[in-house]
Amino acid sequence: MIMTKTTAHTNIALIKYWGKKDAALHLPYTDSLSLTLDGYYTTTTTHFIDAAQDEIWLDHQLADAAFAARVEKFLNLVRTLNHSQKRICVQTINHVPTAAGLASSASGFAALAGSLDKLFQMNLSKTDLSRLARRGSGSATRSIFGGFVQWHQGTDDASSFAEAIDENPNLPIRLLSVVVNNQEKKITSTKGMLQAVETSPFYAQWPQVVQTDLKSMLQALRNHDLELIGQIAEDNCLAMHALNWTSRPAFTYFTAATYQIINLVHQLRAQGYLAYYTIDAGPNVKIITSIADLAQVQARVQANFPQAQVTKLKPGPGIR
Amino acid sequence: MIMTKTTAHTNIALIKYWGKKDAALHLPYTDSLSLTLDGYYTTTTTHFIDAAQDEIWLDHQLADAAFAARVEKFLNLVRTLNHSQKRICVQTINHVPTAAGLASSASGFAALAGSLDKLFQMNLSKTDLSRLARRGSGSATRSIFGGFVQWHQGTDDASSFAEAIDENPNLPIRLLSVVVNNQEKKITSTKGMLQAVETSPFYAQWPQVVQTDLKSMLQALRNHDLELIGQIAEDNCLAMHALNWTSRPAFTYFTAATYQIINLVHQLRAQGYLAYYTIDAGPNVKIITSIADLAQVQARVQANFPQAQVTKLKPGPGIR
Repeated sequence: MIMTKTTAHTNIALIKYWGKKDAALHLPYTDSLSLTLDGYYTTTTTHFIDAAQDEIWLDHQLADAAFAARVEKFLNLVRTLNHSQKRICVQTINHVPTAAGLASSASGFAALAGSLDKLFQMNLSKTDLSRLARRGSGSATRSIFGGFVQWHQGTDDASSFAEAIDENPNLPIRLLSVVVNNQEKKITSTKGMLQAVETSPFYAQWPQVVQTDLKSMLQALRNHDLELIGQIAEDNCLAMHALNWTSRPAFTYFTAATYQIINLVHQLRAQGYLAYYTIDAGPNVKIITSIADLAQVQARVQANFPQAQVTKLKPGPGIR
Repeated sequence: MIMTKTTAHTNIALIKYWGKKDAALHLPYTDSLSLTLDGYYTTTTTHFIDAAQDEIWLDHQLADAAFAARVEKFLNLVRTLNHSQKRICVQTINHVPTAAGLASSASGFAALAGSLDKLFQMNLSKTDLSRLARRGSGSATRSIFGGFVQWHQGTDDASSFAEAIDENPNLPIRLLSVVVNNQEKKITSTKGMLQAVETSPFYAQWPQVVQTDLKSMLQALRNHDLELIGQIAEDNCLAMHALNWTSRPAFTYFTAATYQIINLVHQLRAQGYLAYYTIDAGPNVKIITSIADLAQVQARVQANFPQAQVTKLKPGPGIR
C-alpha cells in the first residue's frame, strides 16, 4: 500500500489575492505573496476503495455535504487527469482552530493535492503540484511551498502557479493570530471577491495596486526590512478591504473588535514596537511583529482582549 | 450705514467634494452635490472701520489668530476686487454646535461673502457670489443656495460655481445629526484630501465614481426617490472614506462610535426604516431618513447612544 499521508500548512497573504479572472480555473486577476505558517496545518491520507462512492472523512467524522461536494469535485478532476474511475477514501485532519480566519481550504487542498499525487504516482513537480492545488482553492496554490511564496497569476492553467521566494527566511518575523470572533463568516471569500470585482468602482485600479505593492514587497524581502514588509502588508490589506467597502451594496468583514485591534496596533507602533496588521475575509486580525517584540505585543493584546484566542506563529515549511 | 447682516446655512454633501485640482482657487477635481440645512447657520455683519487693522469677532469675542488669518485673506481678496484699502470689522455668530462635524466654514464664508457683497455694493449674482464664497472655503460655494445644490467643478475661477437644483424640495427628506465626539478633528479636510489625492492608489478613479454617482443622484432627485438618494449618498461617502483608508500612510476620520452608528443604520434599514448615513471629515454621522420614519429613527439612536447629541434637520434656505 502506498503511503499517501501528506501535511500542508496554512499561509497568510501579505499581498492579497482578491478576484478571479477565471472562476472555473481559479485564475486570479493579480499575483499574490504569502508567508506559510508553522502552527496551523492539515494532514490528509487517501486510498482507493472498492465502493460505489467516494468516502470523505474530516476530523474523524464523515464530512458534511458541502465539504464532501468540494472534495469530490477535486477527486473527479484528478481522476480525469489520470484516466481513472477508482473510488477514493479521503481522511483529513485539520490542525487549524475552528474559524481562526486562517483558511483551512489552503492547507486542505494543498495536502489533498499532495496526497493524490502520491496515490496516483503522478510525480508532479512542486510547480505542477501548486497548479493542481489551485484547482481546489486559489490560496492552496501557495501552501505547496514554505516561507515566502509568490503566486504568479498566469494567463491559463499552465502559467498560473506558485514559486518559492525564500523557503527558509532568515528574518526575525513573527505573527500573532488574534481570534476575536469564531462565528462563521457571512460572506464567503468567493462571493466577496466576486462582488468586489463586479461592483467596486475601484476594482479597475486593484491590479495596479498589487503590482506596485508586490514590487516594493519583493525589494523589502531582499533587504530583510521587516518594518517595510509590515507596512506594505497593512497598506495592501486596507486596499483589499476598501474594495469590499466600496462594493455596491457595500460589505465588510470587519467588526467592532477588528477596529479595536487595529487601534491597539497603531498604539503599539506609536510606542516603538514593530506591529502591523493584516486581515483576510473575516473579522480576525494577524499582527506582524518581530522576535524581539513578540512577547510584549502578545502581553498587550491579551491584556486588552482577554477573551481573544492569541496564537504565536512563525514561518513554516512546504508540503511533506 | 449699509445693512450688511447676512445669514447663510451649512450644507451636507450627498456627493462629496474630496480633492483640489487648484489649491489657491479652490477648484475641485469633481462636481459635488449638497443639501442646505435649516438648523445650523452663520450670521455675519461687516462695516468699514477707521483703523490700521481689520477687526475680526467670532461669537462676541476677538477671534483667534488662525481664524482671523483665514478671514483676513478673504478680506484682502475682496478689497483687491474693489480696489479698496479700507479696513473692515467682521462680526460672526455661528449657530453651529461646536465641532458638530457640520462645516461652519461653509456657512461662515458664504455669509461673509454675502455681507461683503452688500458692504462694497458689488451686486453680485448668486452665481458670482458662489464663486466668491468658494475662494474662502470650497464647501461655502454651495451654501449660497438653498435645498439641493450642485457645485460645477469648472476649469478656472470663472467656471467653478454652484447652481440650485431644487431650492424648495418637495420631498419628505429629514436628517439626524448624531454627534458622538466633539473633539477637534486631528486631520483637517484640506490636509486629508491632499493626502488622498497624492497617495491613494484609488484616487485616479474617484472623478469617475463621482460622475456616475452624480448622474444617478440627479435622476433620483427628479424621481423623488428618497431611498435611492440615501443609498447613493451612503455609497459615495464610503468611496470618499476609502480614499483616506487607502492613503499611504492610511488615515480615517471614523472612530469606534462611528462604526457603531453605521451598524445601527444597517439594523434600522433591515427592519424596514428609511435610514442611510453620510459622514464628512470627522467621526460624527448624519442619518438620512424620511418625515415618516424620523421619530422612530431618532428614538432608536438616542436609546443606543444616550451620550450622543442628536439634532433633527430639514432642507434649509439660501443666503439672505
